[in-house]
Amino acid sequence: MLANKDIKKYNKKNTYSYTFGAFPTYELLENCPEFVEKVFIHTTANKEIYDKIKLLCDKNDIPLVVNDKLLEKIREKDSCIVVGVFHKFQCDIEQGENHVVLVNPSDTGNIGTIIRTCIGFGIRNLAVIEPAVDIFNPKVIRASMGSLFHMHFKYFSSFKEYVTAYGADRRMYPFMLKGAKTLGSFQLDTNHAFSLIFGNEATGLDDTFLKVGQSVRISHSDSIDSLNLSLAAGIAIYEFTKNSF
Amino acid sequence: MLANKDIKKYNKKNTYSYTFGAFPTYELLENCPEFVEKVFIHTTANKEIYDKIKLLCDKNDIPLVVNDKLLEKIREKDSCIVVGVFHKFQCDIEQGENHVVLVNPSDTGNIGTIIRTCIGFGIRNLAVIEPAVDIFNPKVIRASMGSLFHMHFKYFSSFKEYVTAYGADRRMYPFMLKGAKTLGSFQLDTNHAFSLIFGNEATGLDDTFLKVGQSVRISHSDSIDSLNLSLAAGIAIYEFTKNSF
Repeated sequence: MLANKDIKKYNKKNTYSYTFGAFPTYELLENCPEFVEKVFIHTTANKEIYDKIKLLCDKNDIPLVVNDKLLEKIREKDSCIVVGVFHKFQCDIEQGENHVVLVNPSDTGNIGTIIRTCIGFGIRNLAVIEPAVDIFNPKVIRASMGSLFHMHFKYFSSFKEYVTAYGADRRMYPFMLKGAKTLGSFQLDTNHAFSLIFGNEATGLDDTFLKVGQSVRISHSDSIDSLNLSLAAGIAIYEFTKNSF
Repeated sequence: MLANKDIKKYNKKNTYSYTFGAFPTYELLENCPEFVEKVFIHTTANKEIYDKIKLLCDKNDIPLVVNDKLLEKIREKDSCIVVGVFHKFQCDIEQGENHVVLVNPSDTGNIGTIIRTCIGFGIRNLAVIEPAVDIFNPKVIRASMGSLFHMHFKYFSSFKEYVTAYGADRRMYPFMLKGAKTLGSFQLDTNHAFSLIFGNEATGLDDTFLKVGQSVRISHSDSIDSLNLSLAAGIAIYEFTKNSF
């Protein structure tokens, strides 16, 4: 049990994290109620939000606490009027399913947006290669709009470790500026699960990935150096899944 | 001439704005030198950055000023070591070219990312329907990685005003959750320029847009409410331009 005095600004070292805002908190309560410790709601919350949160809390026997002072202490924006407090959890990714693999992602907004896009296009497994951003950072959860709670995810200390555990019977597609084929120019092998692999925001994937599966580039004009990471990942995920929706 | 004492934190009402960081400042100096008042560089900047900025400034007769105190006063992040100061400018969009139209965009990061994607995929004309975010906000410029300086853009007080001025001989594609056709499912009319139209982050386009040209939806799973605006725009721009690269 977390006492109110132990509730502090988010820190990576804490064993708990937060959902800031009503929408991510709904997603938390609907998909992962077993990890929720309590929910704080501000006295300025409107009735519709209060009632929906109250219903979800009651259903799962989760305390709903009105404590403006504490909520104001931990929230990051003044507009946030609901905060879910949950214990960080471990989960695993699924063999035989499509994966997105992020190698050394460093931006909380990007990884959150990528998670939201994955869930939007039916990819529910995410491998993260360290060093990497903390997936439980509330900024990730916020950018994902709570989609994190639909996601299977797992951290790996190296890409090799991921391949050893999940590489069998699977097609790998590293996305690189030097990629050998252009996205959209080749037929997908639909008999196998795929892994779409993306590098760090600043450095991309190193040249060793040219030998991993089928390297892919997204063609664009010379007027930009590269696409934003979450955009590149979003376009790739769209193209690989567009016949499923 | 702007005296140093007039250089203050960015404000929408100012007639000048800033590029924060070396890369957006390169883009400013290379593409719009005529609007640049001066460039500030920090004493901690490395030689490579200093030399590149110095060369670009000298070529265009622009003062390069070392003034750590002033630079630290206006920058938004401690890591920023170059700031370009430029006069806001007006420009026009081109008839007969492809356009992106943003109706009431409210997020600086989204509009910046969309500008970067536009330039990456060869769309150089942006119409913005008011009320809307200030395109000269340094956060827009930063998210665009300086791509703003490759862009033709124009503000309109209403969508109707845009149509009156630019609607002739052009195909309109409003992107909406209720769109009549799915992106990728129909043939593009390549004999006409197109306008890809996107709504506000929270509210999207209202139903009146169902009667504008060919409405389009990007199909996704029910697990998310909608895609992030910059993602939806990026995917649409990719799909409409992918045969050009």
